[in-house]
Amino acid sequence: MLGTREPEIYGTTTLDDIAGMLEDRALELGFEIDMRQSNHEGHLVDWVQEANASGARAVIINPGAYTHTSIALHDAIKGVSIPVIEVHLSNPHARETFRHVSYVGQAAKGSIMGFGAQSYMLALDAAARI
Amino acid sequence: MLGTREPEIYGTTTLDDIAGMLEDRALELGFEIDMRQSNHEGHLVDWVQEANASGARAVIINPGAYTHTSIALHDAIKGVSIPVIEVHLSNPHARETFRHVSYVGQAAKGSIMGFGAQSYMLALDAAARI
Amino acid sequence: MLGTREPEIYGTTTLDDIAGMLEDRALELGFEIDMRQSNHEGHLVDWVQEANASGARAVIINPGAYTHTSIALHDAIKGVSIPVIEVHLSNPHARETFRHVSYVGQAAKGSIMGFGAQSYMLALDAAARI
Amino acid sequence: MLGTREPEIYGTTTLDDIAGMLEDRALELGFEIDMRQSNHEGHLVDWVQEANASGARAVIINPGAYTHTSIALHDAIKGVSIPVIEVHLSNPHARETFRHVSYVGQAAKGSIMGFGAQSYMLALDAAARI
Amino acid sequence: MLGTREPEIYGTTTLDDIAGMLEDRALELGFEIDMRQSNHEGHLVDWVQEANASGARAVIINPGAYTHTSIALHDAIKGVSIPVIEVHLSNPHARETFRHVSYVGQAAKGSIMGFGAQSYMLALDAAARI
Amino acid sequence: MLGTREPEIYGTTTLDDIAGMLEDRALELGFEIDMRQSNHEGHLVDWVQEANASGARAVIINPGAYTHTSIALHDAIKGVSIPVIEVHLSNPHARETFRHVSYVGQAAKGSIMGFGAQSYMLALDAAARI
Amino acid sequence: MLGTREPEIYGTTTLDDIAGMLEDRALELGFEIDMRQSNHEGHLVDWVQEANASGARAVIINPGAYTHTSIALHDAIKGVSIPVIEVHLSNPHARETFRHVSYVGQAAKGSIMGFGAQSYMLALDAAARI
Amino acid sequence: MLGTREPEIYGTTTLDDIAGMLEDRALELGFEIDMRQSNHEGHLVDWVQEANASGARAVIINPGAYTHTSIALHDAIKGVSIPVIEVHLSNPHARETFRHVSYVGQAAKGSIMGFGAQSYMLALDAAARI
Amino acid sequence: MLGTREPEIYGTTTLDDIAGMLEDRALELGFEIDMRQSNHEGHLVDWVQEANASGARAVIINPGAYTHTSIALHDAIKGVSIPVIEVHLSNPHARETFRHVSYVGQAAKGSIMGFGAQSYMLALDAAARI
Amino acid sequence: MLGTREPEIYGTTTLDDIAGMLEDRALELGFEIDMRQSNHEGHLVDWVQEANASGARAVIINPGAYTHTSIALHDAIKGVSIPVIEVHLSNPHARETFRHVSYVGQAAKGSIMGFGAQSYMLALDAAARI
Amino acid sequence: MLGTREPEIYGTTTLDDIAGMLEDRALELGFEIDMRQSNHEGHLVDWVQEANASGARAVIINPGAYTHTSIALHDAIKGVSIPVIEVHLSNPHARETFRHVSYVGQAAKGSIMGFGAQSYMLALDAAARI
Amino acid sequence: MLGTREPEIYGTTTLDDIAGMLEDRALELGFEIDMRQSNHEGHLVDWVQEANASGARAVIINPGAYTHTSIALHDAIKGVSIPVIEVHLSNPHARETFRHVSYVGQAAKGSIMGFGAQSYMLALDAAARI
Repeated sequence: MLGTREPEIYGTTTLDDIAGMLEDRALELGFEIDMRQSNHEGHLVDWVQEANASGARAVIINPGAYTHTSIALHDAIKGVSIPVIEVHLSNPHARETFRHVSYVGQAAKGSIMGFGAQSYMLALDAAARI
Repeated sequence: MLGTREPEIYGTTTLDDIAGMLEDRALELGFEIDMRQSNHEGHLVDWVQEANASGARAVIINPGAYTHTSIALHDAIKGVSIPVIEVHLSNPHARETFRHVSYVGQAAKGSIMGFGAQSYMLALDAAARI
Repeated sequence: MLGTREPEIYGTTTLDDIAGMLEDRALELGFEIDMRQSNHEGHLVDWVQEANASGARAVIINPGAYTHTSIALHDAIKGVSIPVIEVHLSNPHARETFRHVSYVGQAAKGSIMGFGAQSYMLALDAAARI
Repeated sequence: MLGTREPEIYGTTTLDDIAGMLEDRALELGFEIDMRQSNHEGHLVDWVQEANASGARAVIINPGAYTHTSIALHDAIKGVSIPVIEVHLSNPHARETFRHVSYVGQAAKGSIMGFGAQSYMLALDAAARI
Repeated sequence: MLGTREPEIYGTTTLDDIAGMLEDRALELGFEIDMRQSNHEGHLVDWVQEANASGARAVIINPGAYTHTSIALHDAIKGVSIPVIEVHLSNPHARETFRHVSYVGQAAKGSIMGFGAQSYMLALDAAARI
Repeated sequence: MLGTREPEIYGTTTLDDIAGMLEDRALELGFEIDMRQSNHEGHLVDWVQEANASGARAVIINPGAYTHTSIALHDAIKGVSIPVIEVHLSNPHARETFRHVSYVGQAAKGSIMGFGAQSYMLALDAAARI
Repeated sequence: MLGTREPEIYGTTTLDDIAGMLEDRALELGFEIDMRQSNHEGHLVDWVQEANASGARAVIINPGAYTHTSIALHDAIKGVSIPVIEVHLSNPHARETFRHVSYVGQAAKGSIMGFGAQSYMLALDAAARI
Repeated sequence: MLGTREPEIYGTTTLDDIAGMLEDRALELGFEIDMRQSNHEGHLVDWVQEANASGARAVIINPGAYTHTSIALHDAIKGVSIPVIEVHLSNPHARETFRHVSYVGQAAKGSIMGFGAQSYMLALDAAARI
Repeated sequence: MLGTREPEIYGTTTLDDIAGMLEDRALELGFEIDMRQSNHEGHLVDWVQEANASGARAVIINPGAYTHTSIALHDAIKGVSIPVIEVHLSNPHARETFRHVSYVGQAAKGSIMGFGAQSYMLALDAAARI
Repeated sequence: MLGTREPEIYGTTTLDDIAGMLEDRALELGFEIDMRQSNHEGHLVDWVQEANASGARAVIINPGAYTHTSIALHDAIKGVSIPVIEVHLSNPHARETFRHVSYVGQAAKGSIMGFGAQSYMLALDAAARI
Repeated sequence: MLGTREPEIYGTTTLDDIAGMLEDRALELGFEIDMRQSNHEGHLVDWVQEANASGARAVIINPGAYTHTSIALHDAIKGVSIPVIEVHLSNPHARETFRHVSYVGQAAKGSIMGFGAQSYMLALDAAARI
Repeated sequence: MLGTREPEIYGTTTLDDIAGMLEDRALELGFEIDMRQSNHEGHLVDWVQEANASGARAVIINPGAYTHTSIALHDAIKGVSIPVIEVHLSNPHARETFRHVSYVGQAAKGSIMGFGAQSYMLALDAAARI
């Protein structure tokens, strides 16, 4: 599950490219992936709970701006038993101070940030290894 | 270059195991790795500068406690042209508040944290991809 | 109206049990209750406004994590004339520091917290007495 | 045990009225209650310890201003095994910022606030249910 | 696009009146306007992105409480090329301290606040001049 | 009354241009305007009080840096009965953190910021409408 | 009523001297004064309430360290109708930062500080004038 | 020397009345007084230095808003040998939080606040006694 | 003088045991000790002043929660000439953040903390050596 | 241009001495200097702008207390093209905490502090070298 | 192991005296002591780990300034099983605010501070008793 | 003694150039200089103490990032009798907020910052004049 928050930065094509890359890599790893995207904090919370209920192996999430403001997402991640992996294209610590607070990071299994689209690929690898 | 800071937590054997794993994986990726460990902030700074001067492809660093206190390390990383990848065994955001400040994260190319020894493996993969 | 935010902590069964207990108690008090649950801040805001528009006697709300982050919910509660009663299963003050801020508490008529499922029952009693 | 801190706001008569209401309600619930009032932080601490030592079922306390300043009261509540229920006539979160800190809330079993004199009645009900 | 957040303060009639005034003024300026209202942060984010994608000339937004809490809205505004004009009926700086933080103001082209319904009219004028 | 603080940024010519535009627009609106500029906080305070004493319809003020430091200006604005409209060429919220505090905004009738020289024109329109 | 907190700084003799001076001055003004001293926050609170109940004209209080920590004293002063005048021998603002917070000052009618023993004399004069 | 900052609150007449009262009282005490008023921080600083240079017995100053923002005034008061007495008509601690900081109070000999026009009279008495 | 604040943690017997140990050790050192215990901040302040007035050699004090909140105790310790030794059974720095502030530590001669009951024995030794 | 703020600390003579020393040194360096002094923030701002407009080589400024409070001065320095050199007789970092903020330092070309009157001489040297 | 940080304050002779006293006292207690001193944070970390690896009974450490800045030392102390006793000659709480933070105190078994050279002697006694 | 921390920014050649310039200027002033460079905080501390012990006239130090984090360096400078002059190539106040704290500036005799390599030259001049 992907909640990529910056389509306007990377464009539709690139987003499709990432999706393609992820599909290919998932195939190699023997995973089936379900990619979703929303601007709604509530959907991200719903999907974390659904992924857990449906027996998914892991959740890979790019919570975008909700990383820094959503205690609801924090609580949802704390409340599920499957590992949740946080992904960021850039490194939030290198941006504005208000991005240095991470409610998602306080609850996630692990975090991968700063490697651009490769952050997602590394997260898939991480999901395969845990 | 590794500055693993918690030998007392994971024991000498495990540290050797991690070293072995990394050596093997580096071989697969066609990398030669130089592993170092120190409790001295100054050594970490020296080594970042040396790695850059020696033409290394990347620096993988677990700055341990210095993540949160070392502006010197921040400046060293900012001052080199090779990518520096920050690694943590656990997720600092899930620990004490004083670990939520990250001077290294503000300067590093990317960060991988929370996957235990696998954090190092993923960092090697990341180094291969950037 | 109930926005219970932690189904994963208490399980579906318990949630049904709470619902049953509340239905029974409401019957005794001569109330009709409409229970709702959502992970969306916007729904909680919508429902507070709807309850007011529909002439409900009171709103009992467990805003979960939104207690601490939602100024929108604060404004909605301030903007309605019916009493809004805040309920928490546990006591947020006994948890992480970021749960000590309460935007909902600054606007609600009253708050009941820390009594587990009984918090809801006490809130029904409170609604009957005000 | 009641440590009502605002006699000047509600007047002697009202305070007697509350006492009467509480006596009546306690009788219904089969409780015997011992109401006390003091402006001394030390007495509130003493009484929490005495109530525990004397085998009381619960302590209902309106710590008034000491809610926000008394770590001694916090420690006393943490140190007793009987449940302590915090009561406030109004909602401290809706008042000055210095009333948003709650040392008592961090230690109490549960809290009921904002329902005026009914806060005490609900606390009695809560004591009966836990 | 309008996300007027306080229908309960100004009433349905007034809201219609504002809508009418805006329609009339838009006609004079040769604009076509699309007014929307939602309590959902996600919708506001969606609409900013849609307005940009659809080639709108400008977005006029009253983000209400989300002004102060929504980094998601901030990111959406930063990510679009069309100008976004922030509008408030009252002046948030004259209200509670938590309304002094403005994530939307940090991203918007310009802001107009404190002139009641005239704030919207001035925003239309501003849109015509930039 | 104008207290434009950045002549070095916009140059003398531009400042004259703004003055010309404002004179023209004032004529259309039937206003007579008195434009003043000073680097002295005390003059801004004096002028706000004089404008009030002289029966002016409104004060349009660009308090520049004094926006963020002058409680004296805040008090002067609070103390007059005529509306004071705050104007900024750029949006202070998009600049350094120390520009996010607004003593003037806490006292002014309304604020218009971020529209460059058009901010003054919109302020004239606003003055005409209130 | 005097709650002078620093007998060890000024000695017993001086305290008697102050008492004598105050008695003499009170006689001139036609006042009867009742001087008390305690290290107990609770006594200060009790005495403020008693003074009000007994129809005293005013309370002159040197709350010493409790100035900075006692919300209970703040609430007591807010809760009485007679004027309470705060007195300090030295100026707390010229001492440690933790003495810059004044809960008593937020509730008192007026404050006189920094004039040594004359602070009490001026407070008597003030009581005579209000 | 008086720097009364709120003529608009108390009106010209009252200010004259205060001046009259002060003249009369100064006559009784055998003082000659020089009353001045300015909205300029620099004038207040100049006058403190002039009063000292001219051999005045004391400075009575109502620094208004500059109380809270002027380190320059603080430094001027620290730098003169004559006593400076701070006066406020109301009690700044009972107003907005930004009025709780007092740079002037950190440097003044003593402070008298909250007694309205009588604050000035008491300051004259204080000047006579020190 | 002992103000042990946690009888509920260590039990009456242990407290007697500590008392016995201290009596024995005091005998060896040729000291006479006077052990006292209170939940009242005012008593601790009174006793520090009494110990000084009675010519005691030293005060050993476990101020418990008052360590972190009592400026009155701080002032009392500052105001006496005999050495005051602060004792804690556990190390407050290893507990909640609100226990990291120490008003008593800012005034005491020295502090011994973290050695359980042995903290008192070491404090007796310290008293013998200074 | 000099805005020396502490004539009362160093006396008139010394100030003349500094002026003499500076005149002599300027002569050696082939500079013509224009020394000015004011207690008015606005004058400092005016003079920075005038120096720039008049084609001066550099501005040497001792902003005294305005170092820490004047964003107006910060903006003026940012807005001129000639180098502005900040001078302090003592080192503000070694004084009160409120002197650790430096708005002028954030805008100045360079700063020299702590060398007494020699700070001005070094600033002249610096002006000659840049 | 001693990391005494202030040789310049107490001089070489005194340091030798302390060493002599400690050697004598260790002999009485049947301890062998190894005294070391370094200005390098890394050495302090190394030595804590070495002491643990070599089976030492306890570490007595005066971390000087590193008390307040070294999370690395904190982590090292947390990571060893032998007790670490923190020693300070003076009481850091009685000094600058930046010395009130104690990373070492958050990890150490116990702390002894403020007794000058006797702090070390008491630490030896403490080591013998735990 | 020079602890220049940014060789990667200015390159080896430039660093040699600075060294040459300094040697030449020292010769003119009749000084002998000993230039050192290290990434180790401990070495900077050691060298300050050694310079003092060896009877050096002054220490010129560019503490780089340690300016902002090293209380150890602060204490070392406070503990020596020779003047220590702080040098920075750029002005730390114009960079990130975490560079606005200066532990070295709180202890140094004087500071020179922002003049690039000329900062060192001015420091040599300053050393000659004090």
